[in-house]
Amino acid sequence: MTATGQMLETYPQDLGKIDRVKLQACIEACFECAQVCTACADACLSEKMVADLTKCIRTNLDCADVCASTGRVLSRHTGYDAHLTRAVLEACAQACKSCGDECGQHASMHEHCRICAEACRRCEQACRELLASL
Amino acid sequence: MTATGQMLETYPQDLGKIDRVKLQACIEACFECAQVCTACADACLSEKMVADLTKCIRTNLDCADVCASTGRVLSRHTGYDAHLTRAVLEACAQACKSCGDECGQHASMHEHCRICAEACRRCEQACRELLASL
Amino acid sequence: MTATGQMLETYPQDLGKIDRVKLQACIEACFECAQVCTACADACLSEKMVADLTKCIRTNLDCADVCASTGRVLSRHTGYDAHLTRAVLEACAQACKSCGDECGQHASMHEHCRICAEACRRCEQACRELLASL
Amino acid sequence: MTATGQMLETYPQDLGKIDRVKLQACIEACFECAQVCTACADACLSEKMVADLTKCIRTNLDCADVCASTGRVLSRHTGYDAHLTRAVLEACAQACKSCGDECGQHASMHEHCRICAEACRRCEQACRELLASL
Repeated sequence: MTATGQMLETYPQDLGKIDRVKLQACIEACFECAQVCTACADACLSEKMVADLTKCIRTNLDCADVCASTGRVLSRHTGYDAHLTRAVLEACAQACKSCGDECGQHASMHEHCRICAEACRRCEQACRELLASL
Repeated sequence: MTATGQMLETYPQDLGKIDRVKLQACIEACFECAQVCTACADACLSEKMVADLTKCIRTNLDCADVCASTGRVLSRHTGYDAHLTRAVLEACAQACKSCGDECGQHASMHEHCRICAEACRRCEQACRELLASL
Repeated sequence: MTATGQMLETYPQDLGKIDRVKLQACIEACFECAQVCTACADACLSEKMVADLTKCIRTNLDCADVCASTGRVLSRHTGYDAHLTRAVLEACAQACKSCGDECGQHASMHEHCRICAEACRRCEQACRELLASL
Repeated sequence: MTATGQMLETYPQDLGKIDRVKLQACIEACFECAQVCTACADACLSEKMVADLTKCIRTNLDCADVCASTGRVLSRHTGYDAHLTRAVLEACAQACKSCGDECGQHASMHEHCRICAEACRRCEQACRELLASL
């Protein structure tokens, strides 16, 4: 079991009605996507054609920031606020969609964009599945 | 002029149709609210009655994270994506509303919660005004 | 291979003399520790004896923040600056040591603190090994 | 008085021997520098000569991350740990020095780099003064 899964198991109170499998998947997807987008922004920055990748870099940076804060919010269960969880998941799904679309356009040329687009799709999907289960 | 204002003035491309006054106000409110919420979580943690403030601490931490990532997204203008800006502002307004409501309940007892509730209201308002102007 | 490993493999320039295995281990440990410390702060907040865990919560929050920023710095390779990498790794090793020591004191009572202490030890170790290899 | 100053004044316990004026100045400098460096990375990304500014962008992003986490650590006073505060301030001073030096090289060409270099110098100085007072 991952450390994230162990932390969910040892939370001392009731997690409520939330789907623990979907929650864990979404937390892990957010942290993964935050790392990958940070690395993809930097890889784009090191491409010779960086001037053609500026929108991609910007979207990567946004997606990294939104995934990082979403992963943190989802890691907290004390005093659960459904309105906030929903709003944060909606924003994260949008950030992942924007970044997945943008990186997807460069996927055939840059392997890092292909890997990043996949991480974004996984995270967008995980956010939408968690949203649907709330 | 603040450093945030100077950075907006020296951005080398067109900022587009965005209302620069509202944008600057919102960036500054996000960074202020992120700092104040971080400090309020810690102040609550140092109260003797911390056991009664756990939901407040959690909401403070969420609001700090969401404001920090929103302030960063708003500080970027390259390859502007209205869908992402909107989603992020909606989430931030909700985080500030949740935290302002929660801290507002303790405002008469804890000065730090009173100051934090005010910072949250300012930031929520700044997000909503920027949203309305997009 | 993890997404972090794939991103290192697809970085378009030379990574320099850095030990790629140690680098990947350290990036992954930083992101894991950031998540676990965020969750441990929240689990402590939900313990009945929260009043006895306030230093632990604070140290968790600090460690989460420092690990998150360190994981991001290590995910970038463009224009490598050894002075900065060293300073950031030293701070992260210290944050993990402080948090591992603190959580370690509660490990027999709280499973989440035991798991968190282990994540902190792994991350501290990964930082020190990367530092030694620079 | 700024909201940061108000939060320091309303912290419910003793702040200890720390120099409150230097602490407030350092917290504010960290949050300001985090915003300015985020904006400078984006401004560099929108320059036609972005290919010559990739090291500057990377250093900006690192400095933004380190300043953000340092500003958060300094905003907490519960269970103060001098070892951690020192390590974090050392890393932040180094990040600001690296970024101030890098942006300083472009200051005559790019106003945003000139403003950013100044914010980095202020923050480096604030970190060193707080370090010296601990």
